[in-house]
Amino acid sequence: MIPVTTMQGARLLRYGTPADMPVQEVELPALQPGQVLIRMAYASINPSDLAFLSGQYGIKKKLPAVPGFEGSGTVVAYGGGWSRFLVGRRVACASSSGDGTWAQYMVADAKGCIPLRRSVSLEQGSSLIVNPMTAVAMYNIFEKGRHGALIQTAAASALGGMIRKLAAVNGRPVINIVRRDEQVNTLEEQGAQYVLNSTAPDFERKLAVLARKLQATMAVDAVGGALTQQLVGCMPAFSTVLVYGGLSGEACALSPGLLIFKEAQIRGFWLSLWLQKQSALSLMRLGWSVQKHLAGELKTEVRRIYPLAEIHAAIEDYSRQMSGGKVLINCNP
Amino acid sequence: MIPVTTMQGARLLRYGTPADMPVQEVELPALQPGQVLIRMAYASINPSDLAFLSGQYGIKKKLPAVPGFEGSGTVVAYGGGWSRFLVGRRVACASSSGDGTWAQYMVADAKGCIPLRRSVSLEQGSSLIVNPMTAVAMYNIFEKGRHGALIQTAAASALGGMIRKLAAVNGRPVINIVRRDEQVNTLEEQGAQYVLNSTAPDFERKLAVLARKLQATMAVDAVGGALTQQLVGCMPAFSTVLVYGGLSGEACALSPGLLIFKEAQIRGFWLSLWLQKQSALSLMRLGWSVQKHLAGELKTEVRRIYPLAEIHAAIEDYSRQMSGGKVLINCNP
Repeated sequence: MIPVTTMQGARLLRYGTPADMPVQEVELPALQPGQVLIRMAYASINPSDLAFLSGQYGIKKKLPAVPGFEGSGTVVAYGGGWSRFLVGRRVACASSSGDGTWAQYMVADAKGCIPLRRSVSLEQGSSLIVNPMTAVAMYNIFEKGRHGALIQTAAASALGGMIRKLAAVNGRPVINIVRRDEQVNTLEEQGAQYVLNSTAPDFERKLAVLARKLQATMAVDAVGGALTQQLVGCMPAFSTVLVYGGLSGEACALSPGLLIFKEAQIRGFWLSLWLQKQSALSLMRLGWSVQKHLAGELKTEVRRIYPLAEIHAAIEDYSRQMSGGKVLINCNP
Repeated sequence: MIPVTTMQGARLLRYGTPADMPVQEVELPALQPGQVLIRMAYASINPSDLAFLSGQYGIKKKLPAVPGFEGSGTVVAYGGGWSRFLVGRRVACASSSGDGTWAQYMVADAKGCIPLRRSVSLEQGSSLIVNPMTAVAMYNIFEKGRHGALIQTAAASALGGMIRKLAAVNGRPVINIVRRDEQVNTLEEQGAQYVLNSTAPDFERKLAVLARKLQATMAVDAVGGALTQQLVGCMPAFSTVLVYGGLSGEACALSPGLLIFKEAQIRGFWLSLWLQKQSALSLMRLGWSVQKHLAGELKTEVRRIYPLAEIHAAIEDYSRQMSGGKVLINCNP
């Protein structure tokens, strides 16, 4: 039984104009087999959401559509099959093709829902997937590759902190790259051993020395542009750079000579595609293990919570300072 | 016993100025264990040689030095150990750190010498390594990757022809990319099924359609620049591009978004590094199997042979038309 057929939701009318996003009544579609209906508790705002609003993201939806890629809530109905066991449970959830999480309800693939442990709050659960899963997935790629150390750009981000903590727990060295001296200080105060400022004049020399000493043959890069080539140039031969973001707004310019003579490897990483390759079972197992760390290495700092009606203020707040803690939306205040 | 202590060789005096390359008397170093002395028969000229002369290559030698990365000849002395069995044999050889092949004699690592079958002439043997080995190595990576089809740029080159023939023998489809309509005609006359002109206005649309239909998830790229990004954009998700040359002279500009949302992979390929990873035994086995195909799929067309004294004319001839057959140097005319 579907308890509701309409709800309030933020609706993007045109790409590139987040101001054109009224909160209005939206009709809910009928549940298909394999789907569940979630009464949303909290939704988060991530860089991927901002990219989606501007039309720059890898997924485009038919507009108008409800944005929001992740959130948390309680399953209130199911479309048949094994997903019945989710009814009544608190879950972390992600949207893919249909309407998203910035609404009172969401229809989701049961496969993508991660039941929350009792110890995990709905607030924490609303930011369970995008950042912690990306951190764990990329860190696992690093561990499997037998690299001596990991280099990461945009190291002051929430994701950067998670990767640093996962590595610390496993006693593995990380070379952190940031853009400002105060970020160097902050990270060093937090106990980071290797922190480099990419705008410093001797950045490349220092990075090359460290990368050789620690045999740092893998990097995760959220910046792109000229920095990707600097990484390749400073890393040992046969190194891999995982590009998962383009914060610089610029293309990675890679000289063929450098790629060739170092046999370097550049790979794109996208959580959505990575998740699609996992089975429902391994996804739940992964979700479970991520939650074990949610109070520690993978804890998300929440800066402020806005009611759904104030979605524009929430986006503005988050856009102003993306690395200063998560901004959440209370979907049913 | 070393039969000679001096020889005539081309000597590069300064990078960027091939005119400053007199043929003069050069002293031969003493043979170390694991080395052999080869009385050179023929040496070839490859794009990597031209890059080396201009100072743009991955290897730089202390000047003055004898250029030339590959050739053929007869082993006349050895520095000890197992390499004794090479004495008196005709071999294909490559230079790495020391003086190169554009001379009467060369000291070479015994490990890198490939004994020639009786059926293989010294002319053919002088071009055995750079092109045929690259073709076989890259084709093996393609076969191991379970890709539906292979895309190659600069498909009208000698190397492109070898890859096309290796694929034909194995019944595997190749999408050939060239830059001129007459090259399209030439390749089609040679029996190539899929040939695209990258300067045609509908190039990207055609490539995308073909790549999807044939599931072409791997490309080998000798061009770089904007073409690399075009390849990634047209290929299915999870595709790999092996960059082995930079004929465009431009950096590969890769949008992070494209890399990420397609989980694309860009890898540099360099035969020198690839060969270093092979054992002496597997190298000889590979050399043997390459020679089996030298009369067929891997045959090198020889355009003209110049005596060592006319090295400048040889380089000029080759530079003018790099895809019209090999230019060889007769080292002991």
